[in-house]
Amino acid sequence: MTTSKTFQGALSPVLTPFDDNGAPSAERLIRHCRALLDDDVGLAVFGTNSEANSMSVAEKRGLLDALIGAGLPAARMMPGTGACALPDTIELTRHAVANGCGGVLMLPPFYYKGVSDEGLFRAYATVIDAVADARLKIYLYHIPPVAQVPLSLALIERLLKAYPGTIAGIKDSSGDWNNTSAVIDAFASTGFEVFAGSETFPLRTLQAGGAGCITATGNVNAAAIGKLAREWRAVDAPAQQRRLDETRAVFQRFPMIAAMKAAIAWQSGDEGWANLRPPLVELDGTQRVQLENALDAIGFSIPHADQLGVREPAH
Amino acid sequence: MTTSKTFQGALSPVLTPFDDNGAPSAERLIRHCRALLDDDVGLAVFGTNSEANSMSVAEKRGLLDALIGAGLPAARMMPGTGACALPDTIELTRHAVANGCGGVLMLPPFYYKGVSDEGLFRAYATVIDAVADARLKIYLYHIPPVAQVPLSLALIERLLKAYPGTIAGIKDSSGDWNNTSAVIDAFASTGFEVFAGSETFPLRTLQAGGAGCITATGNVNAAAIGKLAREWRAVDAPAQQRRLDETRAVFQRFPMIAAMKAAIAWQSGDEGWANLRPPLVELDGTQRVQLENALDAIGFSIPHADQLGVREPAH
Repeated sequence: MTTSKTFQGALSPVLTPFDDNGAPSAERLIRHCRALLDDDVGLAVFGTNSEANSMSVAEKRGLLDALIGAGLPAARMMPGTGACALPDTIELTRHAVANGCGGVLMLPPFYYKGVSDEGLFRAYATVIDAVADARLKIYLYHIPPVAQVPLSLALIERLLKAYPGTIAGIKDSSGDWNNTSAVIDAFASTGFEVFAGSETFPLRTLQAGGAGCITATGNVNAAAIGKLAREWRAVDAPAQQRRLDETRAVFQRFPMIAAMKAAIAWQSGDEGWANLRPPLVELDGTQRVQLENALDAIGFSIPHADQLGVREPAH
Repeated sequence: MTTSKTFQGALSPVLTPFDDNGAPSAERLIRHCRALLDDDVGLAVFGTNSEANSMSVAEKRGLLDALIGAGLPAARMMPGTGACALPDTIELTRHAVANGCGGVLMLPPFYYKGVSDEGLFRAYATVIDAVADARLKIYLYHIPPVAQVPLSLALIERLLKAYPGTIAGIKDSSGDWNNTSAVIDAFASTGFEVFAGSETFPLRTLQAGGAGCITATGNVNAAAIGKLAREWRAVDAPAQQRRLDETRAVFQRFPMIAAMKAAIAWQSGDEGWANLRPPLVELDGTQRVQLENALDAIGFSIPHADQLGVREPAH
């Protein structure tokens, strides 16, 4: 079992900006990652909120190289590397490890549904054996609402027994507190790091013995989420969580990724931030107005928004 | 609308054999594709039954090159090219078109669920505009039980209007006859080719005005399926379909891909045929015996099995 605690606290599944021609925008991503780290939020790049599976392995390698080339600390990066095809997972995982990433967040292969624990064990084992690097730290990515391929407690236990130095933790995006709680109860005492992936459970996860949270709204609300992750024992932590919930509730009225990008576009003055890659689409004009009004109504603004745009701010 | 009818009749979503080291086995695939064509069954390589999404784009390009290099006719090939990431879809589609493939079978991006028709339209449009080749013929791949991303009639209609020379047809693997029937009624009269992707509807699809079927058990029962696709107007067609159903029912008692591979391994004497890539797993010993007994009980044997192995047949 790993004893490193590189990722304790809050991380964000980092939004991937795209240029108007549809290419990933490394410059915007670098600016965004710098701002997140300034607020003490770690970098879970290439997650679900990053549109990671809408990018090729080559595009993701290129973005990782750009981030590291810009001087951002690889130790604070937990890139998502899990793909349907194990050769893709292996290639991107190798690249992350070779560049010193503190860990990788690994989806199971997700095309086939109803697969066996034996098959999922073999999938992870194939990657670990192929990468064959003691520095590899895998965070399992349990997100049945999207991937539709859950990771059972029995599978986690088997992987931990087979690869105790490599299986470092899990992001639980099930949205099912009973599952998060069961995983913490079963494995956290041995050093297994459990991150709440759902937006609603950061505080409960920390109180129950989890390692932290990887939350979508970290992209737009990093300072407050980083603060809660540090101060979760404070008497006002529940109030902090309620304030986070209030912000999250606004974004969740809309398609979440599009809404976060629209908010950054709005507050940075860089309309390029509003782009998504198909099959996801940007908010329409009506939704944009609704979002902006709703954020104004709760007095919300994005920290460092002025640092995120690559063009002249419009206001 | 395309008026070519390259793929009228039966196709098989061609199983992909893997070596004992997990690499795709081009030699076995070439033998298998030759045998299928001998039985008048077209080559829907890189489909769901091909474990296509478990392979990298480079692996699929390599297999396609090997098939064409071996002299197999590209015009009879309908490779699956749809991936989660549009750059992957574009790369493999370009490669297929450049090599003269008669069409491509294209999944929508399938990581995100509940996406909009607008997003799916943009995904297909992005690929078509990027490939920018009048030879491109796309068969839409509707397989909600696996991909969990359905293609609506409204989406098909919009794509047909925007790209009448490119959107050539659909494989409907919904398992929902009402949907297949509705697609035929709406679009078949204009030349749109509707293929039954479910195992149970080949005859009904042909009778209703569909173009044919792309059926998993084509891998093991090609001669009979090719015959039905030619003779579907014959008086004994329902009896032929019942016989196909009987065989299919045996394979469906087991995980289907593993069972078809096990049957080929058994009847070819080449145990390498039994390999699958994770997350799929091979049948266990008990299942193998059950499958072999069940196939013996209905007197079933695979056409050309002796030509499929790359080692000495065991019997």
